[in-house]
Amino acid sequence: MRERVYLDWNATTPLRSEARAAMIAAMDVAGNPSSVHAEGRAAKALVEKARVQVAEAVGCKPAEVVFTSGATEAAAVLRGFGAVEVDPTAHDCLWSQRRAGQGVAVLAWGYANNETGVIAEAPAHDGPVMLDIVQAVGKVPFAFGWSGADMAIISAHKFGGPKGVGALIVRDGFEVPALLTGGGQEMGRRAGTENIVGIAGMGAAAEAAQRDLADGVWDGVAELRNILETALASGSNNTISVGKGGPRLPNTLSLIAPGWKGETQVMAMDLAGFAISAGSACSSGKVRESRVLRAMGFDGGQAAQAIRISLGPTTTKAQVLRFADVWSAQYAKARARVA
Amino acid sequence: MRERVYLDWNATTPLRSEARAAMIAAMDVAGNPSSVHAEGRAAKALVEKARVQVAEAVGCKPAEVVFTSGATEAAAVLRGFGAVEVDPTAHDCLWSQRRAGQGVAVLAWGYANNETGVIAEAPAHDGPVMLDIVQAVGKVPFAFGWSGADMAIISAHKFGGPKGVGALIVRDGFEVPALLTGGGQEMGRRAGTENIVGIAGMGAAAEAAQRDLADGVWDGVAELRNILETALASGSNNTISVGKGGPRLPNTLSLIAPGWKGETQVMAMDLAGFAISAGSACSSGKVRESRVLRAMGFDGGQAAQAIRISLGPTTTKAQVLRFADVWSAQYAKARARVA
Repeated sequence: MRERVYLDWNATTPLRSEARAAMIAAMDVAGNPSSVHAEGRAAKALVEKARVQVAEAVGCKPAEVVFTSGATEAAAVLRGFGAVEVDPTAHDCLWSQRRAGQGVAVLAWGYANNETGVIAEAPAHDGPVMLDIVQAVGKVPFAFGWSGADMAIISAHKFGGPKGVGALIVRDGFEVPALLTGGGQEMGRRAGTENIVGIAGMGAAAEAAQRDLADGVWDGVAELRNILETALASGSNNTISVGKGGPRLPNTLSLIAPGWKGETQVMAMDLAGFAISAGSACSSGKVRESRVLRAMGFDGGQAAQAIRISLGPTTTKAQVLRFADVWSAQYAKARARVA
Repeated sequence: MRERVYLDWNATTPLRSEARAAMIAAMDVAGNPSSVHAEGRAAKALVEKARVQVAEAVGCKPAEVVFTSGATEAAAVLRGFGAVEVDPTAHDCLWSQRRAGQGVAVLAWGYANNETGVIAEAPAHDGPVMLDIVQAVGKVPFAFGWSGADMAIISAHKFGGPKGVGALIVRDGFEVPALLTGGGQEMGRRAGTENIVGIAGMGAAAEAAQRDLADGVWDGVAELRNILETALASGSNNTISVGKGGPRLPNTLSLIAPGWKGETQVMAMDLAGFAISAGSACSSGKVRESRVLRAMGFDGGQAAQAIRISLGPTTTKAQVLRFADVWSAQYAKARARVA
């Protein structure tokens, strides 16, 4: 069987070797970080090391990092605010939190879109701001401390860490309600015994991702994305590259192929050995048009004919060219069936 | 340096070899369980395998298992109910949810106490019942399906799985509000990309724990606990074994040593090479009397002089006898200082 080509890095990334090693090492630490004895202190030290690693990658202070089970849990802190305005292109974990109410609203803003890769600064807002930087961390330079935001959400498995661990970043001095209550973990901001294996992996991945970013790894990824974009456009004169020309993540290509449903494209390419997606992973599986593309002004037909191809540091030129060949041939067949 | 002796299994357990192997294998599964392509389906299969393993250990149906980041998150489902009554000896993650309100209250009940090991059936209650079976799973026979409860909470790291993963068990047909919102994971009951490494570890640990229980491993642990209890009582004629004589977990010894603060005992024994705790791990670190012991009728002085010694399947007779010797000598010294 031909080797599979994974082009769905925005859904989740393969685990980095550094994260894997840190996780395996953490498996030998038996203590509970809340215990005061030596075994507990060793577990606590792992968590605190990771907190520094994550803070450095996000450009915040270690004490501003609250470890969670992922960005979705971090976003749930919005439940504790009276009113929440949400960017209409934001991820479902934010979109599900929108709420009219009394008082000043929190603005929840998607800084880098998972479906299109479009990067957009939050507009001026008279109230607290939460940024979704899940897709930005490790791919583009970003510093929470300079952003002016009060909160941000991140997820380890988008930058080479394990799935099921993330963080809420809370600006020093900004008060948030506790995400979970019970024990006093995370300075009272998130109860529950820490996922130390996952947190150790997240820290190691954050450090490695930050190093890759500084080393220009993503410039190479952007080149491959652009080669792919050009190749796909050459196979047909009516595709639309969403967000092309504006600020975008280096690895993401959102493509509308008129006459070919996104879900069908995903299945056809899966059978041909390629993993891509239609919309975000969380909302895929459900056959429906993309809310994100609709919010950007595309019509329902277009929003149902989009795919997301997302690359990573280990993606090769041969892989993207092979994808372009296979996709173009399949698209020609699909159009022939319709015509 | 002498080998450390870990006698704090109720705080957290060492990772079982079966869990470790399953976690390392899961690290190679790159997909997002919500993705429809082959990589996504492979990740989904891991989660579903673990769901069956956990269901078998808990005595429920697989569809009744909702994976969470731990028991604390599972307990947070109580936020969605109008009124919550809580067993006064329950863990802080339940205790923090108590709330007067309109309508029929949910009863949150600690089935097996983490500090004392005392096992208590929930009383008759005219409304929904949630059982905390965190400490019971794998140590004593228990079947959710036979319990009559509507909900239960469990945590992997109490039975040899990793920290930071657990489950809410929800009786088939009983409606609960979503724990987290956004994606459609866990049949809409808990959004967020699954912690597949942790979930795989939890499943493997549940299976191994169930096998150990069937093999009578905990009968041996109970024998060692009883040897320890007798040895500690022989060193002093005024200690109190909390819950002795009634139904208790096989591995737990809650001991009140008049005149010697629990926190001081923990520190002294830590220096001597033993890991034990005063109260639950989540509430330790804070110097205070045990709410659990106060609720059981002990006075403030007694509640501040308690330690929890909790054993596991790898605990040896030599370890508990050494503990008894060292502890008895230290207690004699402490009493001499006071006298």
